Amino acid sequence: MNLLKQSVTQSGFSSFLGAEPVKSSPGEIELIIPLKEELTQHHGFAHGAVVGAAADNACAWAAASVAGDVVTSSYTLQLLAPAIGNRLRAHGKVIKKSKRQVSVHANVFAEDETNSKLVATALASIAIVEKDS
Amino acid sequence: MNLLKQSVTQSGFSSFLGAEPVKSSPGEIELIIPLKEELTQHHGFAHGAVVGAAADNACAWAAASVAGDVVTSSYTLQLLAPAIGNRLRAHGKVIKKSKRQVSVHANVFAEDETNSKLVATALASIAIVEKDS
Amino acid sequence: MNLLKQSVTQSGFSSFLGAEPVKSSPGEIELIIPLKEELTQHHGFAHGAVVGAAADNACAWAAASVAGDVVTSSYTLQLLAPAIGNRLRAHGKVIKKSKRQVSVHANVFAEDETNSKLVATALASIAIVEKDS
Amino acid sequence: MNLLKQSVTQSGFSSFLGAEPVKSSPGEIELIIPLKEELTQHHGFAHGAVVGAAADNACAWAAASVAGDVVTSSYTLQLLAPAIGNRLRAHGKVIKKSKRQVSVHANVFAEDETNSKLVATALASIAIVEKDS
Repeated sequence: MNLLKQSVTQSGFSSFLGAEPVKSSPGEIELIIPLKEELTQHHGFAHGAVVGAAADNACAWAAASVAGDVVTSSYTLQLLAPAIGNRLRAHGKVIKKSKRQVSVHANVFAEDETNSKLVATALASIAIVEKDS
Repeated sequence: MNLLKQSVTQSGFSSFLGAEPVKSSPGEIELIIPLKEELTQHHGFAHGAVVGAAADNACAWAAASVAGDVVTSSYTLQLLAPAIGNRLRAHGKVIKKSKRQVSVHANVFAEDETNSKLVATALASIAIVEKDS
Repeated sequence: MNLLKQSVTQSGFSSFLGAEPVKSSPGEIELIIPLKEELTQHHGFAHGAVVGAAADNACAWAAASVAGDVVTSSYTLQLLAPAIGNRLRAHGKVIKKSKRQVSVHANVFAEDETNSKLVATALASIAIVEKDS
Repeated sequence: MNLLKQSVTQSGFSSFLGAEPVKSSPGEIELIIPLKEELTQHHGFAHGAVVGAAADNACAWAAASVAGDVVTSSYTLQLLAPAIGNRLRAHGKVIKKSKRQVSVHANVFAEDETNSKLVATALASIAIVEKDS
């Protein structure tokens, strides 16, 4: 968790996003992104790219929890509902760790004090960064 | 183009991104995102979610140019190379407009004064917002 | 289950595939495809398109179990390992049913008498066929 | 082209599909799959998995034309219209060849003597098989 927080503070965009891991176990991660005005679109919802960033981060962090240094190779994002609320919660779970790739599934929820709604789902392929390459 | 610029200024996140359309014709769009520190990750590259936002915007704007009011339904993003440079250029092109969806392909390039490099490619399904729904 | 079997026998390609549902509950389905020579590629593995067909069928049938008449709109398939064995088992599970789409995740396993191995994972968007359209 | 045809005859499923390359240049390929009853679904259209096989083959063959021995790693398929006709034509074009992956886009058309209609589009990541691994 400390390493994850360090990574967040080092990154300009992640720092701007303010993504914060709230649960972590090998192969699984949960993070929260508090929604502020700069992360919304003109209808007041979280912007699709912000929802995508939540999903991507959850996938990359879940992969990192079993494979160390990683970088996102590709992901497919389905936007299922408008992301209305005061925070995003993203849950990433490793499906399979192969030799060079980790396959990860993530769900993103928009939440306020009383409700939590599934707003996006994603499937990612996260590349394992090789030491000697 | 005026409508596109208006949409950009209305949106908190898009305003933060600073995406600016530079070319537009029916079914095709080109936009630029100047890279600043808040859009990078810890290695100094454009963050994957920012590259994704460039691709998503290019797809949505290209779809909007033939279908009016639209919202991103899903997209697949392949990250092909580190996005090093001082701006991103994204080119979106409509593959097919169906009754309720527009299928769009986009390429994203990282550029500086002398070089332009393909760093990502995306395939999106953009939903057409119906007037009476 | 009877309706599913009827659908299988009506379809030339599905009949050729020989996909058979083995478990079904609302939002979830499991099917088996016995592997024969015509479904393999030159290395003796199940052909990627056959693995894709298993995933696609599992997603469509899971969606049909909650939404009636459906048709596949799009899917993303990750091929994770060579599909060696004498049958494929695909498990599809609905993530969310929206107004016009059902989002479904599927895993495909290659099996013989003693082993079962995850060989592919997929995320699909299945369109609900409207009665009056 | 000879190598491609050899590969087709060696593969049980590809032989069943009857996919035949009709044009080929480095990074680009066009193939045809004659539609027979075993490749259709209950409405008489080409089955989605057959359309997917056309797209996958076009992507893999286009990648092979620049990278030698390859295997499909992942692909996203959008089904855009019912595939009615007496043959499928698939066109694959390499977007970028990286060190270990080739990114490829493909379009699939359903054709008869007088018409050709775009019925699917796909984005694939094709892995380059390494000699010493």
